Amino acid sequence: MKLATLKNKSRDGQLVVVSKDLATCVAVPGIAKTLQAALDDWDALSLRLASAYQELNVGNVPEPQEFDAAKCASPLPRAYQWADGSAYVNHVELVRKARGAEMPESFWEDPLMYQGGSDTFLGPRDDILMAQDEGWGIDFEAEIAVVTGDVPMGAAPQDAGRHIRLLMLVNDVSLRGLIPGELGKGFGFFQSKPSSAFSPVAVTPDELGDAWREGKVHLPLQSSLNGQKFGVPNAGVDMTFNFPTLIAHAAKTRALGTGAIVGSGTVSNKLDGGPGKPVAEGGVGYSCIAEIRMIETIETGEAKTPFMQFGDRVRIEMADERGDDIFGAIEQRVVQYTGP
Amino acid sequence: MKLATLKNKSRDGQLVVVSKDLATCVAVPGIAKTLQAALDDWDALSLRLASAYQELNVGNVPEPQEFDAAKCASPLPRAYQWADGSAYVNHVELVRKARGAEMPESFWEDPLMYQGGSDTFLGPRDDILMAQDEGWGIDFEAEIAVVTGDVPMGAAPQDAGRHIRLLMLVNDVSLRGLIPGELGKGFGFFQSKPSSAFSPVAVTPDELGDAWREGKVHLPLQSSLNGQKFGVPNAGVDMTFNFPTLIAHAAKTRALGTGAIVGSGTVSNKLDGGPGKPVAEGGVGYSCIAEIRMIETIETGEAKTPFMQFGDRVRIEMADERGDDIFGAIEQRVVQYTGP
Repeated sequence: MKLATLKNKSRDGQLVVVSKDLATCVAVPGIAKTLQAALDDWDALSLRLASAYQELNVGNVPEPQEFDAAKCASPLPRAYQWADGSAYVNHVELVRKARGAEMPESFWEDPLMYQGGSDTFLGPRDDILMAQDEGWGIDFEAEIAVVTGDVPMGAAPQDAGRHIRLLMLVNDVSLRGLIPGELGKGFGFFQSKPSSAFSPVAVTPDELGDAWREGKVHLPLQSSLNGQKFGVPNAGVDMTFNFPTLIAHAAKTRALGTGAIVGSGTVSNKLDGGPGKPVAEGGVGYSCIAEIRMIETIETGEAKTPFMQFGDRVRIEMADERGDDIFGAIEQRVVQYTGP
Repeated sequence: MKLATLKNKSRDGQLVVVSKDLATCVAVPGIAKTLQAALDDWDALSLRLASAYQELNVGNVPEPQEFDAAKCASPLPRAYQWADGSAYVNHVELVRKARGAEMPESFWEDPLMYQGGSDTFLGPRDDILMAQDEGWGIDFEAEIAVVTGDVPMGAAPQDAGRHIRLLMLVNDVSLRGLIPGELGKGFGFFQSKPSSAFSPVAVTPDELGDAWREGKVHLPLQSSLNGQKFGVPNAGVDMTFNFPTLIAHAAKTRALGTGAIVGSGTVSNKLDGGPGKPVAEGGVGYSCIAEIRMIETIETGEAKTPFMQFGDRVRIEMADERGDDIFGAIEQRVVQYTGP
């Protein structure tokens, strides 16, 4: 099934069930008012939600609302956990290579993961408000994330997959200009990872059909920058750590509470042993600007593609094998923030 | 006023107003069922909560419950944001010194802060369940934290103080054995910072009287290990960055949502230009085991005090100038976790 959250006057918005074709939706206050409420009692409520989804799809809902992604908050407008992995190790290796650093061999076996902030997610069409552009190096990162149920501490990778409730797309907004300073301090990202945005719609794994296998999504993730296709890497390719492995990593020393979001990190394909080519040159391109800049640096000694400027637009979406939109598109513009 | 959350069958527990002397409490479902609900609508509800607190204190509540810290969850059993600073730079300098590393001068001007996980906080009397003790190096960290209202992005330090709603104590459980590996990977803490626990009671700043000034709590924070006093450093001393400054740091590139928790980091006093002495030698002692181990290492070349073993108990509390308990005590035992 497909679920979304419409903005209303409340902090958690209104849960709606969305039709498979993303055309219509219906609120289900008799089942759950918010997505977190549905997740809090998933075993009891998910069948009822699935039933409402079927009714909507076959036209049995008398007057469904038109579904408008522009009216959406992120499926969870605020969450209790946002743990973002870096499962496409190719991306990590490229970052290192661009600055002439070897990547430790252990990175192929022990997932990288950072603790993200989850109190103020952006809606999928909300502007990315930032006080500076040039100095802060505003970048998008196109990713996939899962929403889990309760995961017990110490869950094994082979058991963790059954806790996956929903999938979403993510724009993990990153401030490249602030990263070196923060990582240099040794405490990881904080200011350099401002609020992320998620796709209008969260879907249960069965919505992906055969494309959901081995704990990965085997479909291209499309990113566009100012209307130009920027990347179409396949999220099922070169994902060194699948979602169950990432969940188990996150739960090694703590339980995860229901509604926890676990991200894949920037989707990146290596392809034929070399770095991917830009889409314009027939390659699969990139899921963030940093990656093309790294390749430019490796190839020419200098990054040419600028980070996002005020007014720039990013769009992130994923279609199924028939070309049908699965999650709705994240589409955001960078806008100058002038103060509270 | 003083607020707490009793465990019940729900994930967010039941909000209760607690008497000033921590003897009795009363549920206020007509005002708010949970602390997060109260924070979500604080302007409208806080006066009503304060009124219930007054009635309870003067004995106008017919049959108040006995207040039992053992029945408490953390005031926010799960939260949307847990940002922990390291405001006692003395502590950071000691960590560095013990491993022979200089501390950058910038650490005196730019706060260190890590993004914590907030989905599964431990109750103030819950066991600390861990799969390993020796290898993981289980430590407590006694800290103070504030709970904020909505903080706009870019809030200035001089404006951020007015967003402070509540104060609590924290046990920021840390796994010293896992920290070097995680920090070496460059993404900050994750597995090395398992679930934290907070004091039974959260209090509004006015409860601290004159001890709350300059955005700091000017009272000793007492930690005990297995019944022995381990530290009584004054939280108002050597706090290089006060709470408004920490909040402004956290909100530089993002808004903070109401109910965000911002921590001080391990409370540590330098005293007379040298490292503090153990309590047994007349000093103020330490708020974590790592610190005494660092001093042992600096002085004798070897750490002698072990980290927490299974069965060890830590107690964290704070009394006001008259010796009255303010927050109730965090008291936790380390217990071996044997699997889900």
